[in-house]
Amino acid sequence: MTKARDEFSIISRYFSAIGDADPNTLLSVGDDAAVVDIPAQMQLVVSTDTLISGIHFPQETSAADIAYKALAVNLSDLAAMAADPAWFLLSLTLPHSDDDWLRPFADSLNQTAQQYGLELIGGDTCRGSLSVGIQIGGLVPAGQYITRKGASPGDLILVSGELGNAGLGLASIQHKIELPEALDATCRQALNRPRPRLQLQSFLRQFASAAIDISDGLQADLAHILKSSNCGATVYQDQLPVNQWIQQQAAYEYALNAGDDYEICCCIAAANETQIGRWNQDHPDCRLSVVGHITDSGYLLDNGESDVDLATVAAGYQHFD
Amino acid sequence: MTKARDEFSIISRYFSAIGDADPNTLLSVGDDAAVVDIPAQMQLVVSTDTLISGIHFPQETSAADIAYKALAVNLSDLAAMAADPAWFLLSLTLPHSDDDWLRPFADSLNQTAQQYGLELIGGDTCRGSLSVGIQIGGLVPAGQYITRKGASPGDLILVSGELGNAGLGLASIQHKIELPEALDATCRQALNRPRPRLQLQSFLRQFASAAIDISDGLQADLAHILKSSNCGATVYQDQLPVNQWIQQQAAYEYALNAGDDYEICCCIAAANETQIGRWNQDHPDCRLSVVGHITDSGYLLDNGESDVDLATVAAGYQHFD
Repeated sequence: MTKARDEFSIISRYFSAIGDADPNTLLSVGDDAAVVDIPAQMQLVVSTDTLISGIHFPQETSAADIAYKALAVNLSDLAAMAADPAWFLLSLTLPHSDDDWLRPFADSLNQTAQQYGLELIGGDTCRGSLSVGIQIGGLVPAGQYITRKGASPGDLILVSGELGNAGLGLASIQHKIELPEALDATCRQALNRPRPRLQLQSFLRQFASAAIDISDGLQADLAHILKSSNCGATVYQDQLPVNQWIQQQAAYEYALNAGDDYEICCCIAAANETQIGRWNQDHPDCRLSVVGHITDSGYLLDNGESDVDLATVAAGYQHFD
Repeated sequence: MTKARDEFSIISRYFSAIGDADPNTLLSVGDDAAVVDIPAQMQLVVSTDTLISGIHFPQETSAADIAYKALAVNLSDLAAMAADPAWFLLSLTLPHSDDDWLRPFADSLNQTAQQYGLELIGGDTCRGSLSVGIQIGGLVPAGQYITRKGASPGDLILVSGELGNAGLGLASIQHKIELPEALDATCRQALNRPRPRLQLQSFLRQFASAAIDISDGLQADLAHILKSSNCGATVYQDQLPVNQWIQQQAAYEYALNAGDDYEICCCIAAANETQIGRWNQDHPDCRLSVVGHITDSGYLLDNGESDVDLATVAAGYQHFD
């Protein structure tokens, strides 16, 4: 089958020097594979996330925002594992080779890669409907990675930042809601430019019993922790960190189910509760909020009036009884 | 944006235990990322290749053949680097969740992964037009990987197996040519079930100055070696390892440009020529043929009557004068 004839020129023109060269990279873009050293006492953390136009981002999203977000959602996976970003591969599928799209895409990819200490070491480009696949590699000192398994009854459930903003941004773009101007800008920014919470690394390594990044909404992602840890949870609606608009409209479904926030949800032993205040004092841009606690079984939302069963509200979460 | 709601059930139902569990895998499918150990004195070799329906395989290709080929083309990249397969990630984009497709796909993926000592350690599934992205990780003893750079004038150019069969198979499926029945079966098999030449590992590590796998045809892929090594080459048409049909029809363009053969092209010093006979005696299923030699400059095909300039015949190869 014939590939895009310009695959090689696209790679050499746009993607041969993205991010900062890493001394552990022995062979980078331009061979059959890349070769990297893994420093002694470190373990490799790898993940992949693909963004598809019209599914993971609105079709009108700018090339620069797509490049940023493709890296950010993968960096967010490393953040949830408490790993350090190292390198990435890019699988780019494009309907046609277009400098007006590729140039800002490559520039934004480069800027973001440099910001987070990543080097592009390989990948492929194909012709087809637009999708951006990133495979990311990170490093963690042996045994210090955090998984979804490890939460236990009594643990506090924390989330970083605010939940629901990305979902509001999408609803606004889709003309489903109308937001005040400043909030609208904030929410569209949250949708297009989610911030991977890599700064939580030391907190997670020291205190977290389990962690996950919130890509599908707190309800679904916390459910993964519960399933892996074989626990239940109670979440308090009035403790969810949301903006005033969500509070006033009681539109908590954006915080629980809209997804795309890429905040971190983690669990810590209740004995470490005082660490939260310390963290928040030093990190006003990445505040942690207690939103509930881990229980033996059941998955409930206390909305102030009654307990809503989160395990049966949506399909797929029926395994927590 | 909403993802396929059944992503998690697809992964847990079909992809939670593919291939053989590797003792170096610390965390596999089912978390935000996978975690692996890289043994001491080993280097990591990573590559990614995406197969898109209608571009990299005919739309009517069976799910089992697609799964096989997606792994095989990535294994072929490791073979060209002289690396050992270790693990892979899967990025699967599907128009709809269909057990009649997913079951044979997963079974074939599992069978192939087991055959080559690979473990599936992570990935994602999305809804969209059919594409299969594999990111493969392999290991090589420190410094023993082979690149495209390193060929020098006087080196012999070798290729494994036969060239052009996959191209003939595709042309036959597309009703562009009619082949004798037995050859037709062989060529369709070559297209759908290319054999990654991992058995060449020891030969490459001992003797190869440069290597590449032939995915786009010998002409384009040898050009990559020449560009990386800053050399030229002369290729002898009558030394190309092709089947009788290609010889009789003088249809050498299938060997030079059709691609999809996934044989290995490598260079060795002329002083090692006697190693080729030894190799071929022991490996009748993976014979090596000398097809030309490396020169200072120029990229020529000696067709017995004249020298055809391969550097200017096709776009993109104009850098070898």
